[in-house]
Amino acid sequence: MADLDRQRARRLLNERRLDALVLTQPENFTYATGLPAGVPAMWRRAGGATALVPSDPAARIGAVVGDLNADVLARRAPEIALRTHPLWIDLVDIEGLDPAGVDTAALVTEAYRLENGGEASFPPRPTTYSASGAFAVLGDLLREIGLDRARIGVDLEFMPAADFAILKEAVPEIEWVDGSEVLRRLRMVKSAREIDCVRRACALSDAGFHALAAGIEAGHTPKDMTRLWRDGVAAAVLARGEPGLTGLWDYMSVGPDPWSGGGAVVPGAILKADVGCIVEGYNSDTARSFVYGEPDRIARDVHAALETAYEAGLSAIRPGALMRDVFEATVGAMRAAGYPGYRRGHYGHSIGASVGSEEWPFFAADSDVVLEPGMTLAFETPFYGKGIGALTIEDSLLVTETGIEILNDLPRHLVRLG
Amino acid sequence: MADLDRQRARRLLNERRLDALVLTQPENFTYATGLPAGVPAMWRRAGGATALVPSDPAARIGAVVGDLNADVLARRAPEIALRTHPLWIDLVDIEGLDPAGVDTAALVTEAYRLENGGEASFPPRPTTYSASGAFAVLGDLLREIGLDRARIGVDLEFMPAADFAILKEAVPEIEWVDGSEVLRRLRMVKSAREIDCVRRACALSDAGFHALAAGIEAGHTPKDMTRLWRDGVAAAVLARGEPGLTGLWDYMSVGPDPWSGGGAVVPGAILKADVGCIVEGYNSDTARSFVYGEPDRIARDVHAALETAYEAGLSAIRPGALMRDVFEATVGAMRAAGYPGYRRGHYGHSIGASVGSEEWPFFAADSDVVLEPGMTLAFETPFYGKGIGALTIEDSLLVTETGIEILNDLPRHLVRLG
Repeated sequence: MADLDRQRARRLLNERRLDALVLTQPENFTYATGLPAGVPAMWRRAGGATALVPSDPAARIGAVVGDLNADVLARRAPEIALRTHPLWIDLVDIEGLDPAGVDTAALVTEAYRLENGGEASFPPRPTTYSASGAFAVLGDLLREIGLDRARIGVDLEFMPAADFAILKEAVPEIEWVDGSEVLRRLRMVKSAREIDCVRRACALSDAGFHALAAGIEAGHTPKDMTRLWRDGVAAAVLARGEPGLTGLWDYMSVGPDPWSGGGAVVPGAILKADVGCIVEGYNSDTARSFVYGEPDRIARDVHAALETAYEAGLSAIRPGALMRDVFEATVGAMRAAGYPGYRRGHYGHSIGASVGSEEWPFFAADSDVVLEPGMTLAFETPFYGKGIGALTIEDSLLVTETGIEILNDLPRHLVRLG
Repeated sequence: MADLDRQRARRLLNERRLDALVLTQPENFTYATGLPAGVPAMWRRAGGATALVPSDPAARIGAVVGDLNADVLARRAPEIALRTHPLWIDLVDIEGLDPAGVDTAALVTEAYRLENGGEASFPPRPTTYSASGAFAVLGDLLREIGLDRARIGVDLEFMPAADFAILKEAVPEIEWVDGSEVLRRLRMVKSAREIDCVRRACALSDAGFHALAAGIEAGHTPKDMTRLWRDGVAAAVLARGEPGLTGLWDYMSVGPDPWSGGGAVVPGAILKADVGCIVEGYNSDTARSFVYGEPDRIARDVHAALETAYEAGLSAIRPGALMRDVFEATVGAMRAAGYPGYRRGHYGHSIGASVGSEEWPFFAADSDVVLEPGMTLAFETPFYGKGIGALTIEDSLLVTETGIEILNDLPRHLVRLG
């Protein structure tokens, strides 16, 4: 099942006078087709698996994939116009042959011969795959459906420049333009399946937070925080029977130099965990600070100001709101609390399928993006002070029809440990 | 410590009349500078961290990095010409200030003011970072060292086409060309540190193989194979105190349809594990097939032919040999054994720092690459048969001054389990 919304795609493409999108990033291929990009995606180059999304929702989605397991993909997604290009991997099928009385080499050779249309000369396979060959197949598909003189957006914020040169040479009659902005505005609203992935990622991450808070001891370092959090996530995976965890990441800090990588837990130390779980490729993003024992006055005061700013920003997040207004509400509250110098580039961002933890759009001063139901976001007020530590509050949330739903369930005050 | 060999870089750059390399892929940045690319690398876009490698080995390596922890990087690598561009992340330093009798907001604001050169108006930060701004800093650096009219290779097999357009606009006086081939020929010979990473990855992977072979039971699926192998690797990490495992991957199969993803262990079933550990970003790549109980005649015969071909190919691998000659030795042995239809695109490849498990160059029919000491390679003879299963032999190895060193320690026959 593809996550892409064809009606939304049509609107965005029509607004920009684009006839189609061509998607070459492995994650974008899967988003449009519901299919895995397969082994040629390992290099993160273009051409291994390519999706074609015509602006007309009645026209079929197209896909050009490696020939290795195209039969499996065709059974999984019969609605897709599937084409193949040869990979380096050899696969022979002896299932229809009777092995009785035939020597193994002769049997296998007969299977190859049948696979090769009855010819006993066997064409070589490419070293890996041919991007120009795969793009030529895409060109054939475009001609078949009458898009051979089209204006098409392609994901140039991913596609390596060397591969874009190959595409332009292989299919020169198309007007290729950067379709990244359409793609970003398409992907910023999530399908029910995508939202479920983010929700499950948040639940795992929260379990890790509880394990972290319960396990911290004097002398612990950022590495111990990583271990405690990851062990808590692993326990939750087992307890829930969660099948989808595909990765996790963490930025931990201990003590007054938050970007040094060092530090050890002593009385009064500030600890920060900024972490995410990845479920079926979808990221959560959550952060909290803790204090071991009693905080000093400065950490306590700054965290109190952040809590106020957090509530101010959070209350501005609703469907129909401009993302820049959330930025202004947050930074305005910090200014009102006496911190005019505190200014980040953003106070949060979309979350989900980015290869990193942060995804466009951002709660930023110049963002004209209007919040819509189905957006999954992280809202955050990180403060990094040398001589203080990392003080931060961040939750993942979902924009609903009427407001927001917070996807984490963690207290927002500066929690005391030990 | 950077892994890049400046003398080798000079030779390769001079042969192609290039004055320098500019590297934008996070892994390539680290390779050239020995420094982490930092938080802006999360998006795998260009400009977050950029390395400049002049062809003259006496000229300093340059780096343009985010301003967040540039002080830490400067201390770690004083030999590098380090420049910065602003990130979205705010960091204030109160360490030199006396907090006594000063209210927290006033203290923090004074720290911001001092950081801002004494000005009390605080310039905004970018939403994330400005690629054009970072490239402009690179342009300044190029002018400083007299390379402002240079011909420079850039890693266009990574750099997104959208970012290359930004680079050309930001620094138009440079003749930018694709430096990917230079980079590939540079990276194919590994430093002692890189070889050590691959060696440690292989040792972990072997431990996983032993756990897998010991743990397989009737009814097990590819997922059980994954669990057994990963648990074995995890146990080895603990037993060895290995600090560097950064990831792992596996392609498991069970039964006669090797690319279906399904299958369960029954008597006579063929099992295949094609797996890798990643140590400090460096991949191992090793594969074996097993049979549960007695193999049928066909699997036994094909595996015997693969063993013969494996020995034939392996004996052709030595410093000074052409990679295509290894391909020919392997495919020739299979032809002699009666399998003329068996032809893959390659019988192995470099291993190490690729984002995938396979790295250029390849043991392929058209490879003109001459093997050199210091190359880490995987040599493999995979055979995928529907109705048979996946039969494969693959070891990681190092090319030495006099021959090769196999980095795995596993039997190469079809091992019987159960």
